[in-house]
Amino acid sequence: MDYQVFDTTLRDGGQREGISYTVADKLAVARLLDEFGVGFIEGGWPGAMPKDTEFFERAKTELDLKHAVLVAFGATRKAGVDVAEDPQVKALLDAETPVVCVVAKSDIRHVERALRTTGEENLDMVRDTVRHLVANGRRAFVDCEHFFDGFRHDPEYTASVVKAAFEAGAERVVMCDTNGGMLPSMVTKAIEQVVAMTGVSADRLGIHCQNDTACAVANTVAAVEAGVRHFQCTANGYGERPGNADLFAVVSNLQLKLGLKVLPDGCLEKATRVSTALAEIANIAPDTHQAYVGAAAFAHKAGLHASAIKVDPLLYNHIDPSVVGNDMRILVTEMAGRASIELKSRELGLDLAGHPDTLTKVTRKVKDLEATGWSFEAADASFELLVRSELPGADLARPFTLESYRVLVEHREDGTVISEATVKVRVRGERVIATAEGNGPVNALDEALRTALTGHYPHLRSFELTDYKVRILEGSHGTNAVTRVLLETSDHNREWTTVGVHENIVEASWTALVDALTYGLARTSAPAS
Amino acid sequence: MDYQVFDTTLRDGGQREGISYTVADKLAVARLLDEFGVGFIEGGWPGAMPKDTEFFERAKTELDLKHAVLVAFGATRKAGVDVAEDPQVKALLDAETPVVCVVAKSDIRHVERALRTTGEENLDMVRDTVRHLVANGRRAFVDCEHFFDGFRHDPEYTASVVKAAFEAGAERVVMCDTNGGMLPSMVTKAIEQVVAMTGVSADRLGIHCQNDTACAVANTVAAVEAGVRHFQCTANGYGERPGNADLFAVVSNLQLKLGLKVLPDGCLEKATRVSTALAEIANIAPDTHQAYVGAAAFAHKAGLHASAIKVDPLLYNHIDPSVVGNDMRILVTEMAGRASIELKSRELGLDLAGHPDTLTKVTRKVKDLEATGWSFEAADASFELLVRSELPGADLARPFTLESYRVLVEHREDGTVISEATVKVRVRGERVIATAEGNGPVNALDEALRTALTGHYPHLRSFELTDYKVRILEGSHGTNAVTRVLLETSDHNREWTTVGVHENIVEASWTALVDALTYGLARTSAPAS
Repeated sequence: MDYQVFDTTLRDGGQREGISYTVADKLAVARLLDEFGVGFIEGGWPGAMPKDTEFFERAKTELDLKHAVLVAFGATRKAGVDVAEDPQVKALLDAETPVVCVVAKSDIRHVERALRTTGEENLDMVRDTVRHLVANGRRAFVDCEHFFDGFRHDPEYTASVVKAAFEAGAERVVMCDTNGGMLPSMVTKAIEQVVAMTGVSADRLGIHCQNDTACAVANTVAAVEAGVRHFQCTANGYGERPGNADLFAVVSNLQLKLGLKVLPDGCLEKATRVSTALAEIANIAPDTHQAYVGAAAFAHKAGLHASAIKVDPLLYNHIDPSVVGNDMRILVTEMAGRASIELKSRELGLDLAGHPDTLTKVTRKVKDLEATGWSFEAADASFELLVRSELPGADLARPFTLESYRVLVEHREDGTVISEATVKVRVRGERVIATAEGNGPVNALDEALRTALTGHYPHLRSFELTDYKVRILEGSHGTNAVTRVLLETSDHNREWTTVGVHENIVEASWTALVDALTYGLARTSAPAS
Repeated sequence: MDYQVFDTTLRDGGQREGISYTVADKLAVARLLDEFGVGFIEGGWPGAMPKDTEFFERAKTELDLKHAVLVAFGATRKAGVDVAEDPQVKALLDAETPVVCVVAKSDIRHVERALRTTGEENLDMVRDTVRHLVANGRRAFVDCEHFFDGFRHDPEYTASVVKAAFEAGAERVVMCDTNGGMLPSMVTKAIEQVVAMTGVSADRLGIHCQNDTACAVANTVAAVEAGVRHFQCTANGYGERPGNADLFAVVSNLQLKLGLKVLPDGCLEKATRVSTALAEIANIAPDTHQAYVGAAAFAHKAGLHASAIKVDPLLYNHIDPSVVGNDMRILVTEMAGRASIELKSRELGLDLAGHPDTLTKVTRKVKDLEATGWSFEAADASFELLVRSELPGADLARPFTLESYRVLVEHREDGTVISEATVKVRVRGERVIATAEGNGPVNALDEALRTALTGHYPHLRSFELTDYKVRILEGSHGTNAVTRVLLETSDHNREWTTVGVHENIVEASWTALVDALTYGLARTSAPAS
């Protein structure tokens, strides 16, 4: 691929207020980004952040990337320290990624006032670090922090950092608009000047834009138009302050507006799905109005030339929404919904092409549920259960039925907090009552249910609740809001995710819990049946 | 003023899903936009929309604009109809605005397929309508719909619409990127070609951009750089699909980055306040991450920079936030040190510079809490309570103390789910027991606590729980995970956010709830004490 699509969601994107990825989240994000076809996934700062160190460690065995290579992010060596002795640089090598991206100061004011060292020492730090990485078999990228501000203030010094990095063997030097104050015309002009001053061809430079002027996407596109072939983005533009350049908008603009091929074939149409899934993992409500991938990106107000739109949709859309996996909401007919549900079912190994009635029923059911806050985007297991329950003949044996449950949470006078749950269920004709304690209401409910079922399904003990996400879906002012719960369960071979929605968080969790056990039991008992 | 800042929040902005302005809302929006210093306020489509007709009617007596003039929006006359007899055109004159802006088809395909008339008749419709408006003493602006798509498809025809409008006496012809598919470089090039083909100087043209490529702001700025002096925006970018060019970002970029004077003196610093107020009226949550005016637009997370930021804030911000009425917010995060905690406290009006011991204690406490999953970055109220509780002498009066609480969630045999909470508290020496139901365990607890406290603190009834966020923080494999709850409370003047962390979601919510009421009561009772 001529272009380097470099994603930094896991590093710079995580700077956004409110995002706090677990290591499992990070692995899931990396898999989705790889599926979307990015070439580079910057996973974090090993050594500096314990979670990132663990991510790179687990990535060695748990990530099997098809398109992307992993990148460890770090800084140049400390001032006055031998690079081989610098523990931060050592941690970068320990991450064992093919690429390492180091941030370097390129604004003399930051060198002197923040790093409190000299311009010359900073150049040595860049050279030593890059040489050391290259000598250890790494491809070295250098992020020049505050590049444009530095270049405006003292072009000579900033240019000298670029030259030092390339002389030491850097593969790419990235111009970072760290404070995000640029406009496209300013980016274009600066790149022309940098190329003229350094003699470095623009295709060896990279671009990284923050969105403080609401121009991060446009600035990134302008840099590519000026010859840059490496661009750093984050999914959905997540990042500090107003965020970064949105990966999906940048890539869509480059492919669809400028006709550049930046992703492998078949990847761009995953944009909408991957964007939504990444929002779920970040636990941020997807932005309905996001360009290209937002639910409203191609929504037309009903009544506006509806018939004309139907005859000639391309006169009213800047692109065919399906090329980014989105659809035109005014035309969300049975047809459009059916197609994606059929596709999704096929992904899960359920061919509905031969069952048009089932497809109709499932489509209607999904639409009805989604109207009340359900989302199957990140809950494949619940979706599969829903489809299977509608398949002719294939009646899904529910392993138990609920009679009632009761959960009590008590904060006692001595300050202790206890949670206790009682469930009454019917399992294979038998009525079972079980009570258990837990560290919270959902955990207590989970324990009580397992206690009730273990006699009949002993292998259920191997299931473990590995992640639990809660999203409150806005009603008008809290009171009639509903809660959506996503539950991840593992049997130590495989994870599956289920969903539950209710105004009561305990009931929403219960629904997801029941699906989780039902799905797990159906899968693990399948070989035996 | 050389530049025409044309706001269309009340017309095109209202196309955004979910926005539904009342006439009173529209009047309030117009007053705010005028205060912000825009030159033109497009108020709606009189005749077509009853609310808009009423708005213009009431505006005649109720609006006293200082900077802006009102604009009525409409369409060119119908095909085959005498302009003087066209009721839609008549309604435009009845609105009695100094300016009328009419939309004209400028893409021959839309003329033929949507209007179902000929190119020549469309030109006559433009000429007749403009002449009629001008003859009736109006300044006439013409919005050329689908301008760029039309110009790409058939430049001659689109250019002929521009020429027809000017020949008939239009003051401005506006190039509308109706489908929103343009990039800045494409806008620049198209304007050069239009000027060359029509002989019309760029400063007589206008620009109107939709945000479908996430480039509406950049496209608008590019048009101004190409010589255009009339630009149409909406507040906060509200509009159909991904929206329009955001007024605040466009104006800030033009004034602060390009040095153009587009607003009267003293107006730009109202940006943040006006933006937030307009979001309130639209009943849309303000976008925290919005460029220039978002609450997080100048929020810094990186603790590694905090000490440097303190010395030299402009090295870490692309502008001085106060020029757009915003301020620099420091996020308290796991990386935060003394410097950022001191800065953050100062933001909240608590000067810790003279209390090094308190600063040490608070810093240690924040670090300890954050190590166990707390996060104060979005919970200023909890952070303030924490600091105040450590300040020497300033012992914070807790409005009540908890003895115990008990929450019960029951899923009954008939399928109904109930939540009930009982709290036992001491308020001003009195022991109070209260029980309440709710639609979930936290709501029940909230209701019970309010019931217990209202006798002593009647104004507590005005507090409303406006947002509730839950995040499960991974421990090693779920079981010892903790839950973090963020609670937003409002007293209808102001919102504050509190945080609670516990392995039990109910207890975490309780902690945040107690902080929310404590903070709210301390603030509202402060003037009396």
